[in-house]
Amino acid sequence: MSKKVVTFGEVMMRLSPPGYEKFSQASSFELVYGGGEANVAISCAYLGMKAAHVTRFPNNALGKAATQFLRKHWLSTEHVIYGDDMMGKYFLEKGAVHRSSEVIYEREGSAFSLIEPSMINWESVLKDADWFHWTGITPAISDGAAKCCLEAIKTANKMGITVSGDINSRSNMWKYGKTMQDVIPELVEHCDVVITSSRGIREMFGLGQSEDSFNTLAKELITLFPSVKKVVKKTRRMLSASHNQIQGKMWNGKAYIKTDMLNITHIIDRVGTGDAFAAGLIYGLLHYEDQQALDFASAACALKHTVPGDVNIVSLENVRDLMEGNTTGAIRR
Amino acid sequence: MSKKVVTFGEVMMRLSPPGYEKFSQASSFELVYGGGEANVAISCAYLGMKAAHVTRFPNNALGKAATQFLRKHWLSTEHVIYGDDMMGKYFLEKGAVHRSSEVIYEREGSAFSLIEPSMINWESVLKDADWFHWTGITPAISDGAAKCCLEAIKTANKMGITVSGDINSRSNMWKYGKTMQDVIPELVEHCDVVITSSRGIREMFGLGQSEDSFNTLAKELITLFPSVKKVVKKTRRMLSASHNQIQGKMWNGKAYIKTDMLNITHIIDRVGTGDAFAAGLIYGLLHYEDQQALDFASAACALKHTVPGDVNIVSLENVRDLMEGNTTGAIRR
Amino acid sequence: MSKKVVTFGEVMMRLSPPGYEKFSQASSFELVYGGGEANVAISCAYLGMKAAHVTRFPNNALGKAATQFLRKHWLSTEHVIYGDDMMGKYFLEKGAVHRSSEVIYEREGSAFSLIEPSMINWESVLKDADWFHWTGITPAISDGAAKCCLEAIKTANKMGITVSGDINSRSNMWKYGKTMQDVIPELVEHCDVVITSSRGIREMFGLGQSEDSFNTLAKELITLFPSVKKVVKKTRRMLSASHNQIQGKMWNGKAYIKTDMLNITHIIDRVGTGDAFAAGLIYGLLHYEDQQALDFASAACALKHTVPGDVNIVSLENVRDLMEGNTTGAIRR
Amino acid sequence: MSKKVVTFGEVMMRLSPPGYEKFSQASSFELVYGGGEANVAISCAYLGMKAAHVTRFPNNALGKAATQFLRKHWLSTEHVIYGDDMMGKYFLEKGAVHRSSEVIYEREGSAFSLIEPSMINWESVLKDADWFHWTGITPAISDGAAKCCLEAIKTANKMGITVSGDINSRSNMWKYGKTMQDVIPELVEHCDVVITSSRGIREMFGLGQSEDSFNTLAKELITLFPSVKKVVKKTRRMLSASHNQIQGKMWNGKAYIKTDMLNITHIIDRVGTGDAFAAGLIYGLLHYEDQQALDFASAACALKHTVPGDVNIVSLENVRDLMEGNTTGAIRR
Amino acid sequence: MSKKVVTFGEVMMRLSPPGYEKFSQASSFELVYGGGEANVAISCAYLGMKAAHVTRFPNNALGKAATQFLRKHWLSTEHVIYGDDMMGKYFLEKGAVHRSSEVIYEREGSAFSLIEPSMINWESVLKDADWFHWTGITPAISDGAAKCCLEAIKTANKMGITVSGDINSRSNMWKYGKTMQDVIPELVEHCDVVITSSRGIREMFGLGQSEDSFNTLAKELITLFPSVKKVVKKTRRMLSASHNQIQGKMWNGKAYIKTDMLNITHIIDRVGTGDAFAAGLIYGLLHYEDQQALDFASAACALKHTVPGDVNIVSLENVRDLMEGNTTGAIRR
Amino acid sequence: MSKKVVTFGEVMMRLSPPGYEKFSQASSFELVYGGGEANVAISCAYLGMKAAHVTRFPNNALGKAATQFLRKHWLSTEHVIYGDDMMGKYFLEKGAVHRSSEVIYEREGSAFSLIEPSMINWESVLKDADWFHWTGITPAISDGAAKCCLEAIKTANKMGITVSGDINSRSNMWKYGKTMQDVIPELVEHCDVVITSSRGIREMFGLGQSEDSFNTLAKELITLFPSVKKVVKKTRRMLSASHNQIQGKMWNGKAYIKTDMLNITHIIDRVGTGDAFAAGLIYGLLHYEDQQALDFASAACALKHTVPGDVNIVSLENVRDLMEGNTTGAIRR
Repeated sequence: MSKKVVTFGEVMMRLSPPGYEKFSQASSFELVYGGGEANVAISCAYLGMKAAHVTRFPNNALGKAATQFLRKHWLSTEHVIYGDDMMGKYFLEKGAVHRSSEVIYEREGSAFSLIEPSMINWESVLKDADWFHWTGITPAISDGAAKCCLEAIKTANKMGITVSGDINSRSNMWKYGKTMQDVIPELVEHCDVVITSSRGIREMFGLGQSEDSFNTLAKELITLFPSVKKVVKKTRRMLSASHNQIQGKMWNGKAYIKTDMLNITHIIDRVGTGDAFAAGLIYGLLHYEDQQALDFASAACALKHTVPGDVNIVSLENVRDLMEGNTTGAIRR
Repeated sequence: MSKKVVTFGEVMMRLSPPGYEKFSQASSFELVYGGGEANVAISCAYLGMKAAHVTRFPNNALGKAATQFLRKHWLSTEHVIYGDDMMGKYFLEKGAVHRSSEVIYEREGSAFSLIEPSMINWESVLKDADWFHWTGITPAISDGAAKCCLEAIKTANKMGITVSGDINSRSNMWKYGKTMQDVIPELVEHCDVVITSSRGIREMFGLGQSEDSFNTLAKELITLFPSVKKVVKKTRRMLSASHNQIQGKMWNGKAYIKTDMLNITHIIDRVGTGDAFAAGLIYGLLHYEDQQALDFASAACALKHTVPGDVNIVSLENVRDLMEGNTTGAIRR
Repeated sequence: MSKKVVTFGEVMMRLSPPGYEKFSQASSFELVYGGGEANVAISCAYLGMKAAHVTRFPNNALGKAATQFLRKHWLSTEHVIYGDDMMGKYFLEKGAVHRSSEVIYEREGSAFSLIEPSMINWESVLKDADWFHWTGITPAISDGAAKCCLEAIKTANKMGITVSGDINSRSNMWKYGKTMQDVIPELVEHCDVVITSSRGIREMFGLGQSEDSFNTLAKELITLFPSVKKVVKKTRRMLSASHNQIQGKMWNGKAYIKTDMLNITHIIDRVGTGDAFAAGLIYGLLHYEDQQALDFASAACALKHTVPGDVNIVSLENVRDLMEGNTTGAIRR
Repeated sequence: MSKKVVTFGEVMMRLSPPGYEKFSQASSFELVYGGGEANVAISCAYLGMKAAHVTRFPNNALGKAATQFLRKHWLSTEHVIYGDDMMGKYFLEKGAVHRSSEVIYEREGSAFSLIEPSMINWESVLKDADWFHWTGITPAISDGAAKCCLEAIKTANKMGITVSGDINSRSNMWKYGKTMQDVIPELVEHCDVVITSSRGIREMFGLGQSEDSFNTLAKELITLFPSVKKVVKKTRRMLSASHNQIQGKMWNGKAYIKTDMLNITHIIDRVGTGDAFAAGLIYGLLHYEDQQALDFASAACALKHTVPGDVNIVSLENVRDLMEGNTTGAIRR
Repeated sequence: MSKKVVTFGEVMMRLSPPGYEKFSQASSFELVYGGGEANVAISCAYLGMKAAHVTRFPNNALGKAATQFLRKHWLSTEHVIYGDDMMGKYFLEKGAVHRSSEVIYEREGSAFSLIEPSMINWESVLKDADWFHWTGITPAISDGAAKCCLEAIKTANKMGITVSGDINSRSNMWKYGKTMQDVIPELVEHCDVVITSSRGIREMFGLGQSEDSFNTLAKELITLFPSVKKVVKKTRRMLSASHNQIQGKMWNGKAYIKTDMLNITHIIDRVGTGDAFAAGLIYGLLHYEDQQALDFASAACALKHTVPGDVNIVSLENVRDLMEGNTTGAIRR
Repeated sequence: MSKKVVTFGEVMMRLSPPGYEKFSQASSFELVYGGGEANVAISCAYLGMKAAHVTRFPNNALGKAATQFLRKHWLSTEHVIYGDDMMGKYFLEKGAVHRSSEVIYEREGSAFSLIEPSMINWESVLKDADWFHWTGITPAISDGAAKCCLEAIKTANKMGITVSGDINSRSNMWKYGKTMQDVIPELVEHCDVVITSSRGIREMFGLGQSEDSFNTLAKELITLFPSVKKVVKKTRRMLSASHNQIQGKMWNGKAYIKTDMLNITHIIDRVGTGDAFAAGLIYGLLHYEDQQALDFASAACALKHTVPGDVNIVSLENVRDLMEGNTTGAIRR
């Protein structure tokens, strides 16, 4: 019987000039959809899990089309709600070598940002779920979104569902009057798995010193929030916009685990690679021991770099193959 | 020496699924830009006039790209200003036969809607201008936009520049607390040429009765606003989304003038055809007697139905040719 | 509470050269999916009904992608089954004016054609359904498909679910050893609603004479199969590949009903218009009296001619608007 | 055994903005190739004839690609020669309704215009040919091209091969120092079939009066050039760029023959329709009596209006079907 | 005088999602054609040789279009035959870095697979040929194809034409009841040049041991089949789907020859690189000594990795340039 | 106050097959515009400078569209002149790895090549300019172009405007009867900054020996032309068509300066990278000391390799970031 993951967060229209065109050259935009949490749910669905995403879209044809994207990619969308007028959006200009990709967000006032507590019936949503996943982006969007997220986490806790949070320190996202230090700790308190960075731990929770290792910081975090069992981190070395190396690290309360570094030499699309890692981690922790789970997460992350769009639509077989060390990319017939 | 027109208003990113695809089918959007007033300016520029557009764009790469579209289409953009984050947008799904085109606007909170009085130095903008044109959309967007528009009209008046306004009755656009009846009359008071409809005259100014002819209503309007010299209307008969007929009508204070009906049997893009009419009228009134001016406006309007995008980029020669009755569409080599 | 329709039949990959290119000009194919019965289900879903489609796809990435198309367009796909290797296909070259569209089928040996009785658990599939719809194409594909179809019809009958069949006389499709005269009558015996043509009634059931009216033939059909309550027909007058007229006709056992003729002057895509009619009829009969139901079916059919692809993804509001006589195609903002 | 036609003339790269874009909107060009004479040869090849085209291309990758286009469309290209650097070109902006298509030629100094007499071995080229076809464009290009054309016609004459010329009066094309009146008569002297217009007969040969009917003019032409057996004309009535009517007329020395008028209501591409007529006439005269030949030519011409590109790649079956009066454009499965 | 090569085998429609899209993302397919043997013929044609390909296509517009692809790429297609309905196909999803390309074949029941002995008149086909080339795919397709292949090889032998076979060990392709061990040896018996791998020699002919070098195995093969003069192998080192290294090796009965390893760092399209090698070898052996021939083959193979599609359409000059060590890829103006 | 640069030279239509297609595969061309000098002006404009370009285009819609490209990319085009018929063009086939890009020029007889002295009023053009830039391509095009260039340089000199020339030794471009040795020295005599290569100095000016270093040659050049203050060179190491390394070098009369080598591993578009270097140098010398100016030029050049098209439309911020050593290409949000 497949395990089920539920995620919650904004899904944006992603509009990108074709190929490597810059914004000033575009006469069309490629259209896909993405958002950290839905990206995770879709990844999980392609790996064979059941997956549902909860979000709020504008009550018009654009909101419907966004839902259709989620349905197409195997998500259950019965708990998507509709209201207001504006679709969250981001514009992506793809870079290469020394030229950075550029992202312009337009999400202020979006249907999702106007979500309010109790709009979602979390008991109903989470029935049959095995895992609930959220990211630090959601509470940064609006007070309503932060409160909904807390509702979800607490309900999941009550229902015995594992909770993971992927939280980074992006203070410039917090514009509605609260800071990440105000909001994040209460959300993390109820989590089982936290994906973050050393800087994240220091800045969001005021733990440690700048010279502390990830291990030290992870231990302090677990001390602070005893419900947290695993603290996980993805390291990225950026040789250029076209060439990155990634590695997974985990402190599971007992041991420090890391993966081999994966060398991604010809990046096709970097967006959503962190979400692919998170999805791989969820799948991995549900099906493997910790080392293998982390290897699986890293392999999933590496593969996402080769898939256009936000979502990691590779198959379980692909991930396993890379996780087991097959880096040849030989044609499959 | 070419005459110069100046226009003021929002320019939106226009995003359309390719061909006749519906929103739910799109995996890309075609990107152009449009807005009633800038459409007029560009039309005039293609007819050989000097033309400048004044607007406010977000201060980012998208705002710059929008300006570049205006520059490409021959506008002077030195008075474009930049600020805030959001680009006004509309999504257009193109219909055919019995299926309507659908438009979804996302302009609330746009950089233009946040414009404030005195952000524009109208004396400087209007130096050397012969004509200033505005539409009823601008005062509907926000109080700031309405006030800027009034500033512009008054400055134009003071500088002896002809002013035209293209105003329709769209009460559902007015969301910021004022009604069109509150705002439009003061703007029209300073105009020389008004393009509107019978319904517009009744609803916006409370003139006439529902059975009154356009002539009667136009006379009442001129009585109310003596600065107005010509009241002009474009009649459209819609046989289907693919087949329309259009005709121009004018009361110039002395005579009622109308054009032959033009039969547009294979519409390519209906958006902006009213703006093409307005531009044709401005060019016409600057270069011809009233009957010919109206014929020119109708011909320009008819040709726009065959041009993809918002703007009527046909040449003076094209318009003249149709105005003189050549409807064959024979290949020009 | 929305009504639910279930359909059963092959879904093919549809590959078409872009625009009006002929096969010999194509360097790419546009890809959508279609099949008479799934087209009906999707139409119904866009009108607001619940809809599920049952089919068999190859057990590979292409079969999965086909399922994703159905999911995207709101169908429930939990009863899709997978096996064998080949995807049914058709190639479509789009004509205009005097040039016919050309269709080349490649469905022999497809995963669907290899379906066998009892592969589908019809009790489970039809639970909660209000309507089951099949077409005459399915029994023509293979003996297994015909038998599955009969299983479905009988199960629906037993469960008190309304059954409709859309059957045309295409003897050249029957290649597996049985004729339509062998197979179709047994299937029709259990139907409530039959969509067919005069020629269909004469050729498939050996009823009537060549000069008999549709009414006469419909009455004879009902006499032969007393479970049939309504016999419905869509008349098409083809002025050219770009211009058709359509009209609905019905004998409901008591009265002969017909609609006004709808004039479709600029056809975008003719494929699937019969399925749009059938879907409109199902929706109509579930929500209206017979005359209105037929008007609704004709309006739905007319609108499909303006939508690219096989499926009629227009909204309930669109169909109602046309059914009520609004043929202007005016832009909706 | 299939009959063989040989043609001679320039083949140009045709560059068009996509869809109905104007030149100022294009960010890409669609690329096909065309030229009056090669268009005829390709048409004939699709009708089942053998066909060879003789031309001169630049000696580079662009000239090779042009040859490949001819090969792809079934022509024999073994007598294509290469030299110099420039590819003849034309840019086509497609119009609709009242907006004309615009053509910009760039053929001055092209590889073909630099052709010289005796570069082509006409005995070898015309071996096995049944028909040689030229147009009035070739002698207008350059003195060398005119002389080559005369060589070909005389050789064909000597070898007993039927010769047809499609000549229109376009005095503005003649830029190299000779006039059409200087050059055309000598070329026509050796022809069996002439396709032209009333104006063409008057202007190129100084025959008749402006009020003379086509019949009268055709008779005078035959009197002047006794080798000419048939004078043929295609009449086009242009209701708009999207809607034309065409009709064929012939004086065959004994009778005046004409076809029904064909009504082409949704033109896809008008370029090359005259060449399609010529090709249909060649095929028709080789396979039918005169009336049917003309009907066939008109049907071929009508069908070309629905095919993108310069060449009429419809099948013999398509043409016959329309020639026999089937104008329904019903889908062929 | 150019040498002439003849090839025989299936040509498939190749359908690929654009760029790096996965199957589940595609809304269109890029269309080209390919097949191991035709790929070789086309390569040879671009190098300046005469080349003909023999195959069987469905007797419809798709079969004609496939032939047109071959004609466009300079092949003689006069011996292509037509029959039955289905076009062989393969679907290609292009991978990158750690993500493999995926190929899905649909060739069962194709027109080619239904070919029967004596459908081809090999004496006529091979007249004037200097070389006949086949691959191990053809005999794997069907008994009829295997027998036709044997007919061709024997006829070539009789006519003194050099025969090369490119045979790999793919046992999962053999589905019609015979094994490669049953069929391949008889075909190889009449060959002059064999391209294969060490594993191929072991598995298909039961020669050698798993630890034997290519040299040893090649010698054993020549001992077994004395007509074979050269055994050639292409080694590929796969660093990732985007980065391969290739090297050619040959045992020519006297010496073991190998080339430098070519480093292909940014693969555009890997498909058909083996065929490019084979074509390069054929050209090389006809024009150079063995070492140079092998260098030429490797250079041709390397260049194919940069060309989209199945066929290696680079020029002789390109291959020579790389063969001589110019790896700079400097712009040629 | 922004500095202003003026440039003079031909702007060509650039037509390229999509992606990595070869000419023989193209069914469309991507359309941009480029020319060494305009490329420099546009680059400077994106860096924040004022920039005007002077050229001559054909007096038709294609010439207008070319001007619109320049306007779109921020250039002042008021001094563009129009005449004659032909647009200069180049066709670009993009290579990868070992496959070279191929360029085919068609510029003979272009509107620009027919420019004549005194067609441009240089006093008016250069009013307010701070810098004039030319390249060695212009005097190679025609005697008229060379003379216009000399007019411009002399006028700039007289007006105290800095002059830079980017001159390479391409003797095969000189076809109109003069050699580069005849023409270039007089042009360089009036320059302040010369960008060239060691070979250029030797071949164009007859200075030095083949073994002389760039430094030695640069010194000799300055001795010969005392007005020249800086001699600059860009070194390129070509590892393949996809991977280059570049480095800037300068002799400023006092010191030999060079930059670090920049490693460009995934080239998107190599064309115009020299012009990006020149533009970077102009900006750099106007805003920085020599070392930083050269660093800036190299960074600009490196970034151009990642931008499709001829022109370096990156921002000042991008260049500064790379110049300061940030090579990570991290996403900017």
